[in-house]
Amino acid sequence: MRRVAVIGIGQTKIEEQWDKSLRDLAAEAIFAALSDAEMERVEALYSANMMSGSANHQQHLGAYISDWVGLHHIESFKVEAACSSSAAAFRTALLAVASGEIESAIAVGVEKMTDSPGGEITAQLATAADADWEGDQGLSFVALNALIMRRYMYEYKWNHEDFAQFSINAHANGAKNPFARFQDPINEKIYNSAPMVAEPINLFDASPMGDGAAAVVMIPADQLFPPNGRPMIQVVGSAAATDTIAIQNRREPIWLRAAEISARKAYSQSGLNASDIDFFELHDAFTIMAALSLEACGFAEPGKGPRLALDGEIKINGRLPISTRGGLKARGHPVGATGMYQLVEVVQQLRKEAGETQVDDARIGMAQNIGGSGSNIITHILQAF
Amino acid sequence: MRRVAVIGIGQTKIEEQWDKSLRDLAAEAIFAALSDAEMERVEALYSANMMSGSANHQQHLGAYISDWVGLHHIESFKVEAACSSSAAAFRTALLAVASGEIESAIAVGVEKMTDSPGGEITAQLATAADADWEGDQGLSFVALNALIMRRYMYEYKWNHEDFAQFSINAHANGAKNPFARFQDPINEKIYNSAPMVAEPINLFDASPMGDGAAAVVMIPADQLFPPNGRPMIQVVGSAAATDTIAIQNRREPIWLRAAEISARKAYSQSGLNASDIDFFELHDAFTIMAALSLEACGFAEPGKGPRLALDGEIKINGRLPISTRGGLKARGHPVGATGMYQLVEVVQQLRKEAGETQVDDARIGMAQNIGGSGSNIITHILQAF
Repeated sequence: MRRVAVIGIGQTKIEEQWDKSLRDLAAEAIFAALSDAEMERVEALYSANMMSGSANHQQHLGAYISDWVGLHHIESFKVEAACSSSAAAFRTALLAVASGEIESAIAVGVEKMTDSPGGEITAQLATAADADWEGDQGLSFVALNALIMRRYMYEYKWNHEDFAQFSINAHANGAKNPFARFQDPINEKIYNSAPMVAEPINLFDASPMGDGAAAVVMIPADQLFPPNGRPMIQVVGSAAATDTIAIQNRREPIWLRAAEISARKAYSQSGLNASDIDFFELHDAFTIMAALSLEACGFAEPGKGPRLALDGEIKINGRLPISTRGGLKARGHPVGATGMYQLVEVVQQLRKEAGETQVDDARIGMAQNIGGSGSNIITHILQAF
Repeated sequence: MRRVAVIGIGQTKIEEQWDKSLRDLAAEAIFAALSDAEMERVEALYSANMMSGSANHQQHLGAYISDWVGLHHIESFKVEAACSSSAAAFRTALLAVASGEIESAIAVGVEKMTDSPGGEITAQLATAADADWEGDQGLSFVALNALIMRRYMYEYKWNHEDFAQFSINAHANGAKNPFARFQDPINEKIYNSAPMVAEPINLFDASPMGDGAAAVVMIPADQLFPPNGRPMIQVVGSAAATDTIAIQNRREPIWLRAAEISARKAYSQSGLNASDIDFFELHDAFTIMAALSLEACGFAEPGKGPRLALDGEIKINGRLPISTRGGLKARGHPVGATGMYQLVEVVQQLRKEAGETQVDDARIGMAQNIGGSGSNIITHILQAF
C-alpha cells in the first residue's frame, strides 16, 4: 500500500444556508480544496452524506456533484455511515489512492439540513439508529445519548456540571474559527442555566445541526512536491470498526468499543500511541461522547474522561487539545459532513494555519468520527513531515 | 495493486418479500456467500443500497447489517450510486482488498422496495435523477427512458416491435433461473400487446421492482487454494465513469458515454477487447438501455443494437449472450442490489453453474451496472483461470 498525502483542503461556513443548495455547498468546498491544492481536476470523487434522499429528495450524489463542479466523466459515488459518513468517504478515497488504481481523489462531505422537503429532521436523523428497536419507538439521538450519559453519571458518580468544560472549551475555540456556526464563548453560568433537551442533556451538551461542506484532495505521497513551503501531510493511520447498532445489545453501553478498536489499529499502523498525539479532533456530538472518546482512545482511564476537561488539559495549551476549531459543539454538526471538517481542521493545525487556536508544535493529529450512538467509529492519524 | 478473486456468491430470490426485512434479505445473501466461500468471517463489509433511508426508515446499513449477521466490530459502511450502487460497492471492496489493507471482504447489495413506509416508490426512485430539473418536474424513470427511446427510434428508424427480442430473450433465460422474479417465457404477441407505461415503453420493455439481496466474497487471488476443484475467478477489469445527471445536459442523449469510457478502461486493464467477451450481463432496466449498452461497449455500431437481438446473437447460444439469468427484465431489478446479482451471475457462468442457461466455454464475462439515466456506469470483467 503506497503512502497518501492530503494536499488540499476546503470548507464552507456552517450555518443555516437558506440561499444555497446541497450542490452549491459541495461545490464551494471542492473548489476551495482544488484551489488550495493548485489542481484543476482529479480522477475520482467520493461524496459523504447521510440524508439527502429524504432531506433534499436527491440521491445519486456521485453523478449529481461531479456534474455540477465540472469534473465530467470521472469516477464518483457516495459513501454513507450516518454521522461517520465523511470519515468513511475519506477512507474510501485513501484506499483508492493507496491501491495504485487512482492517482488523485477528492473526498467531500456535505449535508443540507435546513429547508428540507422531507419533514422533521430529528426523525430523519433517527434513521441512523435501529429502525425497529430504537427509531420507531420514538428514541431520538438526544434521547439515546441521554440514556448513555445518565448511566455514565450514575456509574462513575459525576454531576452534570462536571461536563461544562467540554462545552466551554469548544465554544472558546469556535469563537476563533470563522467557519464555525457559533462565534461566542460561553461560561459555567450559561452552561448550567441552559434549558434541558432530554435530561441530563441540556442545550449546551448538544451540538447544533447546520448546512455545510468540507473537502480534501489526496494524492500519492511520493508524487508530492510541497507547494509554498508547506509541510507534507501524510495519512499514517486509518481504521474503521463497528458495534451493535442498538445500544440495548452492547455488553457495555458506556464504553465505545469501536473507538477503542479503530484507535488501537490506527496507533499500530502508525507506530504511535496515545501519548504521541499532539491534538485530537473528537466527535463531541454530545459532551458525554467527548468523555467516552477520550477514555476509549487511551487518553483517560475508564470513567475519568471529565477529569481531563476539569483540569484544563483539553484546552489549546493543555496536554491534549481537543475540538481545537470548535468541535461539533461550536463549529457545528452537519452530520454527513462533520468528519471531513475534522480532517480539514487536523490539516490546518499541522500546517500551522489554525490562527488563534493554533496548537504549538502540532505535528501529529488524530480525528475520530462517530456514526450512530457509537455503532460505527473511524479513526485517522495524520502527520506532518 | 494485487489481484483479487471472487470465492463466494449468494443471492435471494427476487420477489415481493413481505415476510422479510431488509436485514433478513441481506443476511440470507451474506450467509449463502460465506457458506459458498467456506468462510465464517471477513474483515470488511460494503453494503450497496439506494433507498433504505426513505423506503425503510433505516440509514447506516454498515452497522445495521454487520451487527445482524454477527460480523461484530468489522469495518462496514454503505455505498450508494442509485441503480449502480452494487457495482460501486463491489469496486470499493475490490480496491480495499487490492490495496493490501483488507484481506477479505464481502460486498452485498440489498433493496427492500415493497412494504415501504416512505410512500410512493416511483417518487423515491426519481431521487436518482436531478431533483431540480427532472424529479421535481414529475419525470419518473420510465418517462426519462421513454424520452431516450423515442429519440433513438426517430434517429435510427426503428419500430417498437424491433425491441421485442431483448425482452423475449430475458424472459426465456429468467424462466430457467430459480432466483428470477418472473418464471414464464413470453413471445412476440405478448410483447406487442402489452399495455403502455409511458409511450413507447410498454410493460415488457420495463424491468420490475422487487425485494432482494446478492453478495460476493473477495480475497487476494494469491491466497486462493481453489476449493472443490472450482475455477479461480479473478477480477481483471474494473472501471467507473459518470455523465451529467440530467439528460438535458448531454451532448448526445442516445449515447452512453459513461458506458463507453468505463468499458474501454476495463478492456485496457484486462488486455482484452469486446470480441474477447464471452457473455455480457448488461443493465436492461429498459429494452432501450440494452441496445445503448451494446453500442457503447463496442458490440454493435451506433444505432445497430437492436440488430443483435433481431439476429438472435444475444441468446445463450448466440455470439454474445446477454441477460443470461434473466437480466433486470426477468430476474428483476431491486435497484441497489441489481449490480451484485449481475456479478453473482457472471461467477455462476464462469464456474459452469448456470444450469440450463449455461453459456458454452464461458471463460470471460462482463457486467455493467447503470445508475440514473446513464449518469453513473461501472463495468467489471471477470475471468476464470
